[in-house]
Amino acid sequence: MRIATRLTERLEIRHPIVLAPMAFTSGGILAKAVSDAGGLGLIGGGYGDETFLKTAFRDAGNTRVGAGFITWSLARNPALLDLVLDHHPAAVMLSFGDPAPFADAIGAAGSTLICQCQTLDHVRAALDCGAQIVVAQGGEAGGHGAIRGTLNFVPEVADHLAAHAPDTLLLAAGGIADGRGLAASLMLGADGVLVGTRFWAAAESLAPEGHRQAAIPAGGDDTVKTATVDIVRQKDWPKDFSIRVKRNAFTDRWDGNETGLSTAVEAEAARYQAALEAGDADNSAPICGEAIGLIRSVDPAAAIVEGMVADASACLGTRFVVQE
Amino acid sequence: MRIATRLTERLEIRHPIVLAPMAFTSGGILAKAVSDAGGLGLIGGGYGDETFLKTAFRDAGNTRVGAGFITWSLARNPALLDLVLDHHPAAVMLSFGDPAPFADAIGAAGSTLICQCQTLDHVRAALDCGAQIVVAQGGEAGGHGAIRGTLNFVPEVADHLAAHAPDTLLLAAGGIADGRGLAASLMLGADGVLVGTRFWAAAESLAPEGHRQAAIPAGGDDTVKTATVDIVRQKDWPKDFSIRVKRNAFTDRWDGNETGLSTAVEAEAARYQAALEAGDADNSAPICGEAIGLIRSVDPAAAIVEGMVADASACLGTRFVVQE
Ligand SMILES: Cc1cc2nc3c(=O)[nH]c(=O)nc-3n(C[C@H](O)[C@H](O)[C@H](O)COP(=O)(O)O)c2cc1C
Ligand SMILES: Cc1cc2nc3c(=O)[nH]c(=O)nc-3n(C[C@H](O)[C@H](O)[C@H](O)COP(=O)(O)O)c2cc1C
Repeated sequence: MRIATRLTERLEIRHPIVLAPMAFTSGGILAKAVSDAGGLGLIGGGYGDETFLKTAFRDAGNTRVGAGFITWSLARNPALLDLVLDHHPAAVMLSFGDPAPFADAIGAAGSTLICQCQTLDHVRAALDCGAQIVVAQGGEAGGHGAIRGTLNFVPEVADHLAAHAPDTLLLAAGGIADGRGLAASLMLGADGVLVGTRFWAAAESLAPEGHRQAAIPAGGDDTVKTATVDIVRQKDWPKDFSIRVKRNAFTDRWDGNETGLSTAVEAEAARYQAALEAGDADNSAPICGEAIGLIRSVDPAAAIVEGMVADASACLGTRFVVQE
Repeated sequence: MRIATRLTERLEIRHPIVLAPMAFTSGGILAKAVSDAGGLGLIGGGYGDETFLKTAFRDAGNTRVGAGFITWSLARNPALLDLVLDHHPAAVMLSFGDPAPFADAIGAAGSTLICQCQTLDHVRAALDCGAQIVVAQGGEAGGHGAIRGTLNFVPEVADHLAAHAPDTLLLAAGGIADGRGLAASLMLGADGVLVGTRFWAAAESLAPEGHRQAAIPAGGDDTVKTATVDIVRQKDWPKDFSIRVKRNAFTDRWDGNETGLSTAVEAEAARYQAALEAGDADNSAPICGEAIGLIRSVDPAAAIVEGMVADASACLGTRFVVQE
C-alpha cells in the first residue's frame, strides 16, 4: 500500500514521508532506513561536524538520501555544503537562517532545495531563492522552531504557494507522528510530511537511550520551550527560534532564571555534558516535541513508515460519511 | 451535502460544526444562524451578564441553541446557570476552571455537558464529572487558551478517550477556519469541530467592525499571546490561560512592560474601553486566533458552514491517491 502525491512523484519515492535532518540524531543508518522504507532520509548536518557528516554518508551506503543544515551555523563553515554536495544528495534542507547564499550551489549540483519555514516571511524568502520544497513547521515540533500552530500554518502557506508558486511543494512539520497526522496534513494541503520526534524515538536513531526511555512514557504536556538548553550548550541561536525539549529537573531548575544559568555556565555546561553522555534524562534534556504523547515504543524506522501509511490510508475512509 | 459523524447523530444536527461560545461575540443572532445552517450555535455566556444572556436567548427565538461559560467566572455567579438551563439549551459548554460543581445540574436538566480542555489533566477532570463531549483546544485558538498544538493534542486526547471513555465525543478547536481544517480534524480522530475566529468574523457576530476590518487582511503571524489585555480589562484570569489577540499598537507598547501597565491601569483602562467602543483596532485588541490568516472576508454564518462542509468533502477525495 502507498499514498502517492506530487511529492512522491517529484522525489521519486514511494511514501510522502521525509525524515527531519535532526542534529546528533539523524545519522546515516537512520537516514538509510527511512529511504529504504520508501520515504526520504535526511542526514542531520546540525552544527556542522565534518567527521559526523562523512561517517553518516558512509553509513548510508548506496541508498539515496539527502542532508540538512542549520543555516546560521552553515554560514560559519560553508565548505561543509560542498562536502555534502559531493555525495550527490537527493535533497538539501536549510532551516533557521537566510538560505540565499547557498541556494545556487544546491541547484547547480542538481539537488533539490528544501527550506524549512516558521513564518510567512520565511516562505517569501525561500521562494525568492528558488526553493523547490517548502516545509511549514509549527511550534509543537521537537528541537528548534517558532510558535505557529501546524494545523493552521500549513493551509496558510498552501494558500500562499497556490497564489505565488503553484509548482513549489509543501511539507507539514510539527506534531506529526502517526497516520492520523499524515492524513490530516494531506487534508490541509501538504504534499507530504517532515517527521522528527517519531524518528528520534526510532531504533536506528542516535538519541541517547536514557532520553528516549524517559520521553516515551510522557505526554505532550510534558514538553517545554526553553532558552536554558541553548545557554548551557553555549549555542548562539538567533532569538526568533527556541528549542522544545522534554521538561526535566534541569529545565525546572533554570527556566525563569536564565541569568543565573548564564553566570554559572562554565560549571553547568560540564555537568550538562556529562549527563548527556550518560543519557541522564533529568540533567540533560531529551530533545523532542509534543508528539511524544503519540509515541508508545521504540520501533524500527521501516515499521514507523509502514504504520503511518497504513493508518493514514485507513483514516481516509473512516469516522465520517460524506452524503450528497 | 453533509458530513455525518457520531457528533451529528448524538446532537441531532446536520453538520459537525459547533460555534464557540465567544464572550461579547456569540450573541443569539449568530448562534441561531449557525444552528439554522445545520451546526450548533452556542451563546457566549462570557463573564456572566444576565441581560446579555436574556437578550441572546430571545434573539435565538425558537432555534435550538446552547450556551457556554467561562467556568471560573460562573463560579462567582452560579445562578446564571439556572437562567440558561431554563431555556432548555441543547448543550452547555464549560471552559477554564473546574466543571465539577456544575455538571450535575446540567445533566439533571437533560442538557449535554461539553468541557473545553487544554491539557490531558483537564480531560481527566472532564471525564470524572461525566462530560459527554470534550473539546481539545490548541494554543493557536483565538481568545483564551493554553499552549498545545491542535494537530497533535487532538489525537492524543482521542487515544485517551478510546482507552478510558469510548462513548465520549471529541471536538477539535484552535485554528480551524475552513474545510481543510474540518477534514484534518476528522482525520485526527475528532467527531467534529468547535470554531471561534472564523465566526468572530461572520456577518452576524457582535465583534466590532473596526476590529474585523483590521484582522482580516492580517496573517496568522500577526497574532500574539499577551497578558496585557487582561491587565487593562482588569479580568482576573488564572495564570494557566492567556489570551491570543491580533498584535497592535497597544500590545506592542505594553507587552514586556506588564508592571508599567498595572501601575497605570486606571487611566489605561478608560482609554482602552473608549477605543473598544469606537472599534479602534490599534488601541483595543481584536480578539482572534492564528486562523485569521485563512479568512479573507466577512461572510454570513450559513455561507461559512456550507463552505466548510463542501470544501471538506472535496478535500477528502483529492491531493493524494491511495494505492493497494
Ligand atoms: C532531536 C531533534 C533535533 C532536531 N534538529 C534539527 C536540526 O538540526 N535542523 C533542523 O532543521 N531541524 C531540526 N529539528 C526540527 C525538525 O527539522 C522538524 O521540524 C521537527 O522535528 C518536526 O516536528 P516533530 O518533532 O514534531 O516531528 C530537530 C528536531 C528534533 C526532534
Ligand atoms: C473572540 C473570542 C472570544 C472567545 N471567548 C470565549 C469564551 O468566552 N469562552 C470560551 O470557552 N472560549 C472562548 N473563546 C475560545 C473558543 O471557545 C475556541 O476555543 C476558539 O475560538 C477556537 O479556536 P479558533 O478561534 O481558532 O477557532 C473565544 C474565542 C474568540 C476568538
